[in-house]
Amino acid sequence: MTSHALAIIAGDGIGQEVMDQALKALDAAERRFGFSTDRRDYDLGGRRYLATGEVLSDETLAELDEVDAILLGAVGTPDVPPGVLERGLLLKVRFAFDQYVNLRPVKLLPGVPTPIAGLTPDRCDMVIVRENTEGMYAGAGGLLFEGMSHEVATQESINTRHGVERVIRDAFTRAQARRGHLTMVHKTNVLNYAGDLWMRVFTEIGEREFPAVERAYVHADAMCLYLVNSPERFDVVVTDNLFGDIITDLGAAVQGGLGLAASGNIDPTGTHPSMFEPVHGSAPDIAGMGWANPVAAVLSLGMCLRQLGEGDAADAVEHAAATLLTELKTMAGPDMGGSTDDLGDRIATLVADPD
Amino acid sequence: MTSHALAIIAGDGIGQEVMDQALKALDAAERRFGFSTDRRDYDLGGRRYLATGEVLSDETLAELDEVDAILLGAVGTPDVPPGVLERGLLLKVRFAFDQYVNLRPVKLLPGVPTPIAGLTPDRCDMVIVRENTEGMYAGAGGLLFEGMSHEVATQESINTRHGVERVIRDAFTRAQARRGHLTMVHKTNVLNYAGDLWMRVFTEIGEREFPAVERAYVHADAMCLYLVNSPERFDVVVTDNLFGDIITDLGAAVQGGLGLAASGNIDPTGTHPSMFEPVHGSAPDIAGMGWANPVAAVLSLGMCLRQLGEGDAADAVEHAAATLLTELKTMAGPDMGGSTDDLGDRIATLVADPD
Ligand SMILES: CC(C)[C@H](C(=O)O)[C@@H](O)C(=O)O
Ligand SMILES: CC(C)[C@H](C(=O)O)[C@@H](O)C(=O)O
Repeated sequence: MTSHALAIIAGDGIGQEVMDQALKALDAAERRFGFSTDRRDYDLGGRRYLATGEVLSDETLAELDEVDAILLGAVGTPDVPPGVLERGLLLKVRFAFDQYVNLRPVKLLPGVPTPIAGLTPDRCDMVIVRENTEGMYAGAGGLLFEGMSHEVATQESINTRHGVERVIRDAFTRAQARRGHLTMVHKTNVLNYAGDLWMRVFTEIGEREFPAVERAYVHADAMCLYLVNSPERFDVVVTDNLFGDIITDLGAAVQGGLGLAASGNIDPTGTHPSMFEPVHGSAPDIAGMGWANPVAAVLSLGMCLRQLGEGDAADAVEHAAATLLTELKTMAGPDMGGSTDDLGDRIATLVADPD
Repeated sequence: MTSHALAIIAGDGIGQEVMDQALKALDAAERRFGFSTDRRDYDLGGRRYLATGEVLSDETLAELDEVDAILLGAVGTPDVPPGVLERGLLLKVRFAFDQYVNLRPVKLLPGVPTPIAGLTPDRCDMVIVRENTEGMYAGAGGLLFEGMSHEVATQESINTRHGVERVIRDAFTRAQARRGHLTMVHKTNVLNYAGDLWMRVFTEIGEREFPAVERAYVHADAMCLYLVNSPERFDVVVTDNLFGDIITDLGAAVQGGLGLAASGNIDPTGTHPSMFEPVHGSAPDIAGMGWANPVAAVLSLGMCLRQLGEGDAADAVEHAAATLLTELKTMAGPDMGGSTDDLGDRIATLVADPD
């Protein structure tokens, strides 16, 4: 029997609650499809940082590097200053494990109420490929004359041909396997250096390696309009780290909310483990209430299983989540039609026996 | 009789068509409210660049500096490479005239179909104050090893305390005159240097100078969600140049489309003229068809009149545009219920005689 080593970082707030449900679905998938997992819990996040002062040690990072994949719930507690967990944990893992593809599907599932009037599932089915290791996330920049009237703060977007090529090539490959259409999102009319590199690489790789994939380009500002008014334009979308951060949150809104948005931080070379996490955060305001929708976590598990080669299990998990959604009244809060735990039980039952 | 010197840059594509309608409304406002304008046409934009190779000369810039305000339609033609008109004209004027406030109201007017299901005008009435002279728009950065495998492109966001303070102070002043609530949008959890400066300045100015204005902070990614799901959170919003570019396009979508979104590039000190322009572009695909909605241009004229001290005329122009909108069937295209020119006539009639 195949066994996969999984690191489980449940994290803070609703992170633990939604992770519990994903793991129930995983139990059911293992039984039905005949594989096993070796799960290793890691107590990381805001609670742990406040208690010990430690975010993520080099030893823990080395241990994480040994597993086949990482499942993360959500990290963040109100008392932790901004940036500490982001740079010390999330971005540290993304960068250290060279997870250069942040994969975020934006798909309106049947029965899900979208905030966009008249939008139907056939018009909203795309995958956003966000660069995940450089750009504005490099943390490069500085402060001069801090606190004085002549203070200057700089923040630098660093874009390497290496980094841009690999993510664009990954996106073309995905487009080729889908509907054959790739849109690049940037702001080439203003970001003269970074935009120039991205546009040249996009054109070169498209022309030379993927002549059958149709290419389109959209400015980041216009992208927001199109995501709302005409999401049917998009099949696969590729963009840089910061634009990707912004437009995938909008994508999550369009497809029904953060409670449904899954993501994978992927090292497509398989050198390091990939990390799968809901797009939502730890939501301290509703933690403990049983109001969190576990679907984003369950769909992230689905992405993880697909990456691990358990395609049938991934299908079953995604199908169960989609079926549950058709039964929900709202997508989060006290009126979903069951607590987080109840929904997790129903998903697990559906994974075990879809009929 | 007061006279205002106005530079008119109709520009390309639908720019000319919508400008014609704004000027009819201006004629009507002058007659009704007893002021006059000295209008100076400037032939600038893509057509002119393709014909002469010139974008905006220093002589023309010096002439523009003499007027009281600038009205711009839209610039851009398909054959002009990206960046040429942006940096050579739009950004050149914004920067040279130190128009550090880009003011973009996001207001759902009665009778306007919004793409957001269930959204009502009482829940969507905000003003976005976008920094307009620095940040990622500085054009700072470089290319190393161009075209080689080790190529690196950098793009730098430059944020001065001078620049951040003045735009934040302007936003607080506007919030104080409205509902007393100011939200800053940034990405402080990742942009460690720029975000740090913005947050410190926001807190300092708020505490010291505007203790009665309530402050909120939202990350740029979450802002996209909130703009769609809960725009009622916002009264005045202040943000940097690039985030402002992105979220105001989303705001335009939420309030019914680019055909209705007005903006002002304002030098609040009055040292240089301010420039007013619709958020939409020159839309070459529909140029000449009479399908462009002139309301964005007319509302931009309204902002211009207010800046010139013609408050009654501004009210009349805005009221006329709002009245027209309640009569339209769609917000752009062949089914609006009249051509661009027809709608302009109706607006002018409403400005002349609102009853
Ligand atoms: C928490 C934060 C660092 C992160 C990001 O900006 O990437 C989050 O917004 C996301 O999209 O995963
Ligand atoms: C045309 C472009 C330079 C401009 C900008 O990015 O500021 C436009 O998108 C805007 O918002 O006015």
